[in-house]
Amino acid sequence: MNKVIVLNNRPEGRPEDSDFKFTEEEKPKPQNGEVLLKTKYVSVDPYLRGRMRDQKSYIEPFKLHEPLVSGIIAEVVESKNDDFKEGDFVNGMLAWKEFQTNNGKNIQKVDPDQAPLSAYLGAVGMTGLTAYFGLTHIGKPKKGDTIVVSGAAGAVGSIVGQIGKINDCRVIGIAGTDEKIALLKEEFGFDEGINYKTTDNMQEAISNLAPDGVDIYFDNVGGEISDAVLQNIARGARVVVCGAISVYNNEKMPVGPRVTPILIKNSVLMQGFTVGDFQSEFNNGMKQLATWLQEDKIMHKETIVKGFENIPQAFIDLFDGKNSGKMIVEV
Amino acid sequence: MNKVIVLNNRPEGRPEDSDFKFTEEEKPKPQNGEVLLKTKYVSVDPYLRGRMRDQKSYIEPFKLHEPLVSGIIAEVVESKNDDFKEGDFVNGMLAWKEFQTNNGKNIQKVDPDQAPLSAYLGAVGMTGLTAYFGLTHIGKPKKGDTIVVSGAAGAVGSIVGQIGKINDCRVIGIAGTDEKIALLKEEFGFDEGINYKTTDNMQEAISNLAPDGVDIYFDNVGGEISDAVLQNIARGARVVVCGAISVYNNEKMPVGPRVTPILIKNSVLMQGFTVGDFQSEFNNGMKQLATWLQEDKIMHKETIVKGFENIPQAFIDLFDGKNSGKMIVEV
Repeated sequence: MNKVIVLNNRPEGRPEDSDFKFTEEEKPKPQNGEVLLKTKYVSVDPYLRGRMRDQKSYIEPFKLHEPLVSGIIAEVVESKNDDFKEGDFVNGMLAWKEFQTNNGKNIQKVDPDQAPLSAYLGAVGMTGLTAYFGLTHIGKPKKGDTIVVSGAAGAVGSIVGQIGKINDCRVIGIAGTDEKIALLKEEFGFDEGINYKTTDNMQEAISNLAPDGVDIYFDNVGGEISDAVLQNIARGARVVVCGAISVYNNEKMPVGPRVTPILIKNSVLMQGFTVGDFQSEFNNGMKQLATWLQEDKIMHKETIVKGFENIPQAFIDLFDGKNSGKMIVEV
Repeated sequence: MNKVIVLNNRPEGRPEDSDFKFTEEEKPKPQNGEVLLKTKYVSVDPYLRGRMRDQKSYIEPFKLHEPLVSGIIAEVVESKNDDFKEGDFVNGMLAWKEFQTNNGKNIQKVDPDQAPLSAYLGAVGMTGLTAYFGLTHIGKPKKGDTIVVSGAAGAVGSIVGQIGKINDCRVIGIAGTDEKIALLKEEFGFDEGINYKTTDNMQEAISNLAPDGVDIYFDNVGGEISDAVLQNIARGARVVVCGAISVYNNEKMPVGPRVTPILIKNSVLMQGFTVGDFQSEFNNGMKQLATWLQEDKIMHKETIVKGFENIPQAFIDLFDGKNSGKMIVEV
């Protein structure tokens, strides 16, 4: 039998165990033109929370009682498609199933010799591309710029900081534990770190570390942390709006200080984006990221949870910040 | 004697008569290299409210008990500067005085044959340039785009809408009286108008007129009107953040719905700006605007108040929306 995880309820607020349900189905058989895939690594990401809501967005909402879908690295275990052979590894948006068939159209082969397989879900995959395009194409870093990254120890944030250093910027990371702050500075090469959970006055803490203002704010979290950064924004700054994990679980529209007076006063750009906006440039981005990885210019940090049955919990743990770097489930 | 208007108090909330004071000084005499200027037309603009606050911004705050300054068209009545002769007209950021001397460095001659003198404070001056650069350089209109303009009957908004029509866009204006809505449609060529004061559900009203979403939002007002527009924003939209008159009088940081989830979901750009960001392109912009004015492609609408003594009240009246188009005081 084949294990499958379906969406049991649309979460209200923070997702819970009971929002997910394990079911079984017969193990599928590939038809002509298809491959049989065995799931190896499953990416769990904050943006999936949005798809659990029944609401128009940049991608279709998940359907109730149907399997969830995320970035997955799978092994081809049987092939009736000339483009793939047994033992190939592929990357794609695939269902949370142990085994599934695929017609080969929306999966890409990945090379385990070029980068570790799980890195294709992280540093050289969507996560790395998100950091790369957001920072370079929207943030447009110039030598000497001060960059602040929120959610800095997360999958995207940790790569943003490292790309910031490659661009000769001063990089300040915001995260929620002293362990993460140590990690930012000692492993990812950030210049400074701020633990927002132990800092009373974030606005002042940022001002002390960025006395000339923040030129680029890469925002993964939204909410009060972002309010404090915006109070320190420099003239002509770029705010790369990548994520808002602090409000993804809100059922109502969250409220906060209005930003437009600050944007006008300082001629600030805010640009929301998702990585799909840069699809036409994915290949170049992946090449650049793989090169940096091989040259040890970026470090590939993962929190790996083992076991298909732990996928829902790994996803829920994202909202408590239990991951350092990319959260991945190894099946 | 020479009449002068100084800042008597920093306004708290809405500006009042008592925030301004009329004083007199001796009529100045030009030294060698200077001209004597007689004030003809005075521009009063919402952004002046910001300069009345004692707070770092993109321009210096006004000093207490010193003359206020704004865009002024003046006549050269005596010249000891070879670049200017008696009877020339000039444009510059000048003091609220009947007469003043100037060394000629920060004033520009204007040609009354190319455009009406007061238009240099409006359609072919800073106001027109604000509309032109904001819409074309940030909004980047494409044929068929739906543009929503708030403060649409104001000085900037009325020109934005007309430039939108020149770019073959569908233009919807938001204003606060039925007379203004009629003006938008009948004189400025807007396709649609919404009176926000008589509309219960702005979000629905915008949705009805822009069922495929708003591609460009030119925001002159901020606040709840903007909240309603953002609920209708299209994928890849550009929000040109030009003004926030709805909150300029607030003493505390105004609060409203957080925008970053909407920006991410729809890959929306928000860009705050002031016209000075485009200084290097002013000449090209002014030429384009003067050409459109001569070709009757843009209409030049003013509310002209007469009398030096009415400058403060004309400024205060901006916050009640008493102007249609550019508010100007003729001295």
